[in-house]
Amino acid sequence: MVILGAGSGGYACALRAAQLGLTVALVEKGNLGGTCLHVGCIPTKALLHAAEVAENAKDAAQFGVKATLEGIDMAGVNAYKDGVVSRLFKGLTGLIKSRGITVVEGEGRLTSPTTVDVAGTTYTGKNVVLATGSYSRTLPGLDLDGERVLSSEHALSLDRVPRSAIVLGGGVIGCEFASVWKSFGADVTIIEALPRLVAAEDAASSKVLERAFRKRKINFATGTRFESVKTTDDGVVVTVEGGKTYEAEILLVAVGRGPTTSGLGYEEVGVAMDRGFVTTDDRLRTNVEGVYAVGDIVPGLQLAHRGFQQGIFVAEELAGLNPATIDESGIPRVTYSDPELASVGLTEEQAAEKYGEVEALTYDLGGNGKSQILKTQGFVKLVRRKDGPVVGVHMVGARVGELIGEAQLIYNWEGYAEDVAPLVHAHPTQNEALGEAHLALAGKPLHAHA
Amino acid sequence: MVILGAGSGGYACALRAAQLGLTVALVEKGNLGGTCLHVGCIPTKALLHAAEVAENAKDAAQFGVKATLEGIDMAGVNAYKDGVVSRLFKGLTGLIKSRGITVVEGEGRLTSPTTVDVAGTTYTGKNVVLATGSYSRTLPGLDLDGERVLSSEHALSLDRVPRSAIVLGGGVIGCEFASVWKSFGADVTIIEALPRLVAAEDAASSKVLERAFRKRKINFATGTRFESVKTTDDGVVVTVEGGKTYEAEILLVAVGRGPTTSGLGYEEVGVAMDRGFVTTDDRLRTNVEGVYAVGDIVPGLQLAHRGFQQGIFVAEELAGLNPATIDESGIPRVTYSDPELASVGLTEEQAAEKYGEVEALTYDLGGNGKSQILKTQGFVKLVRRKDGPVVGVHMVGARVGELIGEAQLIYNWEGYAEDVAPLVHAHPTQNEALGEAHLALAGKPLHAHA
Repeated sequence: MVILGAGSGGYACALRAAQLGLTVALVEKGNLGGTCLHVGCIPTKALLHAAEVAENAKDAAQFGVKATLEGIDMAGVNAYKDGVVSRLFKGLTGLIKSRGITVVEGEGRLTSPTTVDVAGTTYTGKNVVLATGSYSRTLPGLDLDGERVLSSEHALSLDRVPRSAIVLGGGVIGCEFASVWKSFGADVTIIEALPRLVAAEDAASSKVLERAFRKRKINFATGTRFESVKTTDDGVVVTVEGGKTYEAEILLVAVGRGPTTSGLGYEEVGVAMDRGFVTTDDRLRTNVEGVYAVGDIVPGLQLAHRGFQQGIFVAEELAGLNPATIDESGIPRVTYSDPELASVGLTEEQAAEKYGEVEALTYDLGGNGKSQILKTQGFVKLVRRKDGPVVGVHMVGARVGELIGEAQLIYNWEGYAEDVAPLVHAHPTQNEALGEAHLALAGKPLHAHA
Repeated sequence: MVILGAGSGGYACALRAAQLGLTVALVEKGNLGGTCLHVGCIPTKALLHAAEVAENAKDAAQFGVKATLEGIDMAGVNAYKDGVVSRLFKGLTGLIKSRGITVVEGEGRLTSPTTVDVAGTTYTGKNVVLATGSYSRTLPGLDLDGERVLSSEHALSLDRVPRSAIVLGGGVIGCEFASVWKSFGADVTIIEALPRLVAAEDAASSKVLERAFRKRKINFATGTRFESVKTTDDGVVVTVEGGKTYEAEILLVAVGRGPTTSGLGYEEVGVAMDRGFVTTDDRLRTNVEGVYAVGDIVPGLQLAHRGFQQGIFVAEELAGLNPATIDESGIPRVTYSDPELASVGLTEEQAAEKYGEVEALTYDLGGNGKSQILKTQGFVKLVRRKDGPVVGVHMVGARVGELIGEAQLIYNWEGYAEDVAPLVHAHPTQNEALGEAHLALAGKPLHAHA
């Protein structure tokens, strides 16, 4: 098989296919690992951890620790970030080599349902998997110059902490950068057209995140449409609908990611697309016999771990293992801002729409010992079908991204509150809050009012 | 019913019983919440978090953050710790009041299978639940003076960071204090009679903890028996078997916790005991009809969350709900040192003994992106029965205590590696390592060599 693109979806597909005995050519014009490893998940989370370290030093006195935050050494932050990326890159490169995958460096182009051309050489496979990923989108009339008007890729290689920043877009990426820069000492304003931050999440999560951001003095204007930007000698002036203006040193454009699908021969071979995305059925087949698609080019959540899973799925499918289709709702989502957000399954609104009668229960982290120790606020919210299993878990608070592992298991195994309630969670942990929420939902609250 | 002791086991029993409509008298000579809340889990974890904050400030440069750790303000640490305790105490007090539980302040004494005397007043219940908890043990000839020779309770109220400390006992409590004091700047030596630290854990966990402690320059002598201690003007001199001596400012005695059962009328009423512990059957019945026991006085793991679960069990039993018995192996264990240890189920050795053929798989956190970001080392180790479910999960590394929530679910739901492998873990999280370990155990490793 030939895989076009060696990001999360492509390389996972290659690894699994090779393990199953298939012969794999993996075509990549950039670096193995793609967006996630080089300019996405990994480097942003390194910045977010540096931000946590800075916040810790700043707030040390409230824990009795005498420490002073003197500032951010952006060269040092970047060296740390790049060190993490290069270590993981080295590991991935070794792994791909060890499984006997042929890596083809260069820009590939689909030339038929079974062939990919790379710089004049044709690679032929019984199947082709399209995995060309995504790029940072912008808005009409908004040019990313890399100096004043940045994409997230530009923002990741900034050599300084901006004095001030406007973040256009209050989704996951926007909120994460806003969180980092604020921790690093910048003045930050988020502009979001939708009525709330992280609008894809449960409304309760948005509300608590907004409250936390307000407390952190991260400014945001929701329900506010971008109109234009003017770059000046020392920054940018953004005008929004209605004429109000915002000034800052830089503007980060975080309005989502578009599929990287144009100019790659997809149309010519007849691959069906919708607004640039490659459409597939739930077995990830495109309309062209033998051609599959995985990752960010397939409509849905643009997440590395979705790409992994889709890549594995296609490899197993082509090896004849007939894997179970992927429930997109069972894919956990984490926003790694301070505080973190994590969710799996349906929001309360989605669940009500799908199932009619649902019940929701919110357990406040105020009752959780470990959350008190961390001095974080937030909640665990469960949504279940009436007399049915838990169909949504939503959490906000420091470090809750780690609790989503258990939550996704409950969701994916169609657990009932009554199945989780009798099980013992370690005290004092934050995952105990997940246990307490299930106890309460099962009608037997422990550290919660009935 | 009358409950003797309002620690984790007692108050959980009271809360659940009251919720089920039973009339409850809860007798406590100290404070509601017992050891865990006041001199156990909660305050130690607050110290451990302050230690984490200190380590973060000390190591900030490696993340590009310019910060200086100037020292520990022990009064500030204690104020923080006491603040956490008092907030949770207030919450618990309110909760107990809201459920209409009668709290009797004073020392209770069992006077018959249905009566407890408190300062001359007799409280009668159809049932009595013994929940009198535990105390810090010491060794023969080793007197806890609270000045030089400390119990963990003394250690929690120290008004200074000791220059140096000897910790007698390398179990959970000993390792946690050693970890805190080292982070606070003390010179620390652990003396442990058994051949390894945290000897109740899987041998692999001990090994990695020992390596980490060595790197942190926490000294330890395992397989070393305490012989005697001499207090001097400015410290202690400890002599171990063989004659070698150790000197330090203080000695912490962390050789385990004994059951608080003497002088409370248990023997007189005929309650069967074994070395001070109250023996029960798996429905937590003592040999005396109508008298139950929960928590640290019942042989087994002395953990708050086991107490909670036992308390809930007895309440439900007495309310006629016929709850399922508790599988002690399904109770998660966490050591909150730096690095953390967490486990559930059987060690590899125990599993081999119980089931014969078992398989173990270790996934190194070196392959986990988030662990690399945190710059932590460790592993996730899975143990399964041959062709059977996962029967043990063992983890070492920063923050792995939060991953045990998912692990206990897998253990308690008798999950197979094949059940967990197809589910999606969020990238990049540490819980993803649990997913990767299951992928590898199911024969389809992703970010791991085959």
